[in-house]
Amino acid sequence: MIGVVAVLKVQPEKAEEFEAIFTGLAAQVRANEPGNLMYQLTKSRTEAGTYKVLELYKDADALKAHGGTDYFKAAGAKMGPCMAGRPEIEYLDAVG
Amino acid sequence: MIGVVAVLKVQPEKAEEFEAIFTGLAAQVRANEPGNLMYQLTKSRTEAGTYKVLELYKDADALKAHGGTDYFKAAGAKMGPCMAGRPEIEYLDAVG
Repeated sequence: MIGVVAVLKVQPEKAEEFEAIFTGLAAQVRANEPGNLMYQLTKSRTEAGTYKVLELYKDADALKAHGGTDYFKAAGAKMGPCMAGRPEIEYLDAVG
Repeated sequence: MIGVVAVLKVQPEKAEEFEAIFTGLAAQVRANEPGNLMYQLTKSRTEAGTYKVLELYKDADALKAHGGTDYFKAAGAKMGPCMAGRPEIEYLDAVG
């Protein structure tokens, strides 16, 4: 399995719009990607405007399939104007 | 829901022992905590000896129950000598 922690920084006035777009994306991921085991948006308690997406995939193919979906690309385009910086994506190898 | 990302730094020569202890802990969490929705050990691809635990709990009570279990305390004591520094624990509020 492969874990992902994606750090997303959002403009304060765009938080509500961002959350709505991301929640819609998450619903599509859960409905369409059997190789995705978790896809949960979370919000930092200490850094305003910072979100972290906790993700878990069955394998590299599942991660690749996720990034290649039309709905992922469409959500990325919609989220772009909400962001306050580039996403930081960390890939992690599951143990156990 | 509440997300947790726990960063654990392990001494290189203790990695195998640490992974065995943690894998046992994770099995107990999954078997005994209905309020825990994910508990996955992962290993950094870029920082040697750095592990990240991706966790998701139903609510604050579930998180508190996790930390109060005998097996969590016992695993913590066993892992102690494997560590290369203090754990860094980040708590996150789930969105959506």
